[in-house]
Amino acid sequence: MSLPSLRLKANAERRLRAGHLWVYSNEVDVAATPLNGFQPGDQAILEMANGKPLGIVGVSPNNLICARLLSRDTGHTLDKSLLVHRIQVALSLRERLFEQPCYRLVYGDSDFLPGLVVDRFGDHLVVQLASATMERNKDAVIEALVQVLKPRGILFKNDSAARDAEGLERYVDTAFGVVPGWVDLEENGVKFQAPVLAGQKTGWFYDHRLNRARLAGYVKGKRVLDLFSYIGGWGVQAAAFGASEVFCVDASAFALDGVERNAALNGVAEKVTCVEGDVFAALKELKAAEERFDVVVADPPAFIKRKKDLKNGEAAYRRLNEMAMRMLNKDGILVSASCSMHLPEDDLQNILLQSARHLDRNIQLLERGAQGPDHPVHPAIPETRYIKSLTCRILPNA
Amino acid sequence: MSLPSLRLKANAERRLRAGHLWVYSNEVDVAATPLNGFQPGDQAILEMANGKPLGIVGVSPNNLICARLLSRDTGHTLDKSLLVHRIQVALSLRERLFEQPCYRLVYGDSDFLPGLVVDRFGDHLVVQLASATMERNKDAVIEALVQVLKPRGILFKNDSAARDAEGLERYVDTAFGVVPGWVDLEENGVKFQAPVLAGQKTGWFYDHRLNRARLAGYVKGKRVLDLFSYIGGWGVQAAAFGASEVFCVDASAFALDGVERNAALNGVAEKVTCVEGDVFAALKELKAAEERFDVVVADPPAFIKRKKDLKNGEAAYRRLNEMAMRMLNKDGILVSASCSMHLPEDDLQNILLQSARHLDRNIQLLERGAQGPDHPVHPAIPETRYIKSLTCRILPNA
Repeated sequence: MSLPSLRLKANAERRLRAGHLWVYSNEVDVAATPLNGFQPGDQAILEMANGKPLGIVGVSPNNLICARLLSRDTGHTLDKSLLVHRIQVALSLRERLFEQPCYRLVYGDSDFLPGLVVDRFGDHLVVQLASATMERNKDAVIEALVQVLKPRGILFKNDSAARDAEGLERYVDTAFGVVPGWVDLEENGVKFQAPVLAGQKTGWFYDHRLNRARLAGYVKGKRVLDLFSYIGGWGVQAAAFGASEVFCVDASAFALDGVERNAALNGVAEKVTCVEGDVFAALKELKAAEERFDVVVADPPAFIKRKKDLKNGEAAYRRLNEMAMRMLNKDGILVSASCSMHLPEDDLQNILLQSARHLDRNIQLLERGAQGPDHPVHPAIPETRYIKSLTCRILPNA
Repeated sequence: MSLPSLRLKANAERRLRAGHLWVYSNEVDVAATPLNGFQPGDQAILEMANGKPLGIVGVSPNNLICARLLSRDTGHTLDKSLLVHRIQVALSLRERLFEQPCYRLVYGDSDFLPGLVVDRFGDHLVVQLASATMERNKDAVIEALVQVLKPRGILFKNDSAARDAEGLERYVDTAFGVVPGWVDLEENGVKFQAPVLAGQKTGWFYDHRLNRARLAGYVKGKRVLDLFSYIGGWGVQAAAFGASEVFCVDASAFALDGVERNAALNGVAEKVTCVEGDVFAALKELKAAEERFDVVVADPPAFIKRKKDLKNGEAAYRRLNEMAMRMLNKDGILVSASCSMHLPEDDLQNILLQSARHLDRNIQLLERGAQGPDHPVHPAIPETRYIKSLTCRILPNA
């Protein structure tokens, strides 16, 4: 092994030995191993202060998270062979759990592949590289994916904010074969097409799969309102599960075209109404028009992107959920979701309680949902957990 | 209204106005309204320090929780009419969610019926009264249940420790009609019989229904170990969902007779092996015999019954889960459950992480399960939340 060393300060190994994979720049003994001696994406042997090796890291010398553990075995650097192995381990879990080849195949740190996300849509893959090390090894990533999955096409959707901190440019590019603008997928037995090129993130949000599946018991014969609907993940599934009528609200005309496309795909177009506009404004209008619903789904984009947004973000969740509750019939169901990693589930629960009390309603918390098993949580890395979905029954005060 | 008043000290109304239902004895203005002026089970008008009424409470003058809010409307005391109304509200949720009449019909505070639990097994009901007020109104409870549900039989299973704090005797008694020793139920499409008279609690634990349903994706063709199996809630469902072989371990021969009965009921008797004995001892023996499993379910009784048990209880969860992980094949699934209200989910997650790291294994947290929607959580009352179920994948260190 001719890898350079990256040496930690005394005791800085504790978090890593407890399972974590990240090294912060203030934990490095920069006198012994200066960070500016590394190029972004270099691999190194991570050492404890006493010189004992902990494993192989990928180095991002200019980022606050300056290194990520790639292997606890110093014999294994990140290369095509390790990528193939890790992708196979990730794949075997998904193949055990899902009948259709539609899932998040690789979820970064949780699949011991820091900086790599792969969403699978049958024969098409969408890849996000979020670390300098993965960017440097992008050819190996593609070769490994081609070897394991033999896809028709792979898209690099490398346009996330995480790349900025790594000093990486943002770009979207076909990495292999051919990728159409819209790809097919199936979730909970419902068919969808997702705009992998022009849509949000990888084009689809597999993370709420289980929570959407649980809608089935609540929506049969009911009137459903889907707020921040995007291309209909919740709303079209509700219609397919037997809702009598579904309203999808989103600010994006492009997203609502997707709702119509997906509703048609499942033969429920006549049950689905699209409302284009700012969700808060649309809620006011629907309220004024005396529209009421049996089930409201509120799954907004992250209102709390950074810790400093916490107070404003909580206020936004509070406002949204209180408005959502006002749209409910007397004995109604609110599915309140959040993808803000910085908003703990208990805080969302408190927001719902306060909203209900403010409206003088009673609230029963029926279900608490999380991200599905294709987005495993790494229990040592709180950042890998982000999805919350609280299903509540809202009743008149008794 | 000729009810007496129970007056709170200044500011003691805050928690109640925020949604909570309990009054602690140190919150009462005993100079104005002495608690020893009440008989256990009396109803009273709860007043703020300024005399403004908050609602109707049931009084337990000798308990730390000396009163529970029965209604926020001073016009409604607890009587048959209010019980009928509240039971109907509870029933309408369960009928919406469950195809079979098998569920927790009433879950105390969460269904705004403090001190009352009702489990429904088709035409048979098992009732637990846990407050002096409910005990005093037990005839009205039975009349209300008969009016709403027309059951064949109702059993009082009034033998819980909660009654001691209320100064109530423990007893088990048929309250109405006829109740057989074993009653039929169905959960997730699997048939069971539960020993309502001689079994634990009400005879069955509906609270893990959703978590058991999620087993289906993990056990097909797999070898499963069910620890603290009781009458086979997890193990027999695993067998019915397609497990190749299931071992059920329990210290109670009576419980294991129930496993055999329930396995036979579903035609999976030949796949299910019962192991009688202390679970920790049995794990050592199974380990020594080189038995290994693809899926281990560890759903022990509450190791932490009171706050003071926290440290010892956490150590027991740690020991159990580490031993359970040792029983797994190389790529194995551990379903780790806890019904200890005093053990937060995050603590259980940390216990699992520590156990895995101690064994030098990697752990992926795939699913986090909670009590089902027939055990709604009252978001203002943390005590109403108790079930945790963490599904983990345990891998060799990479």
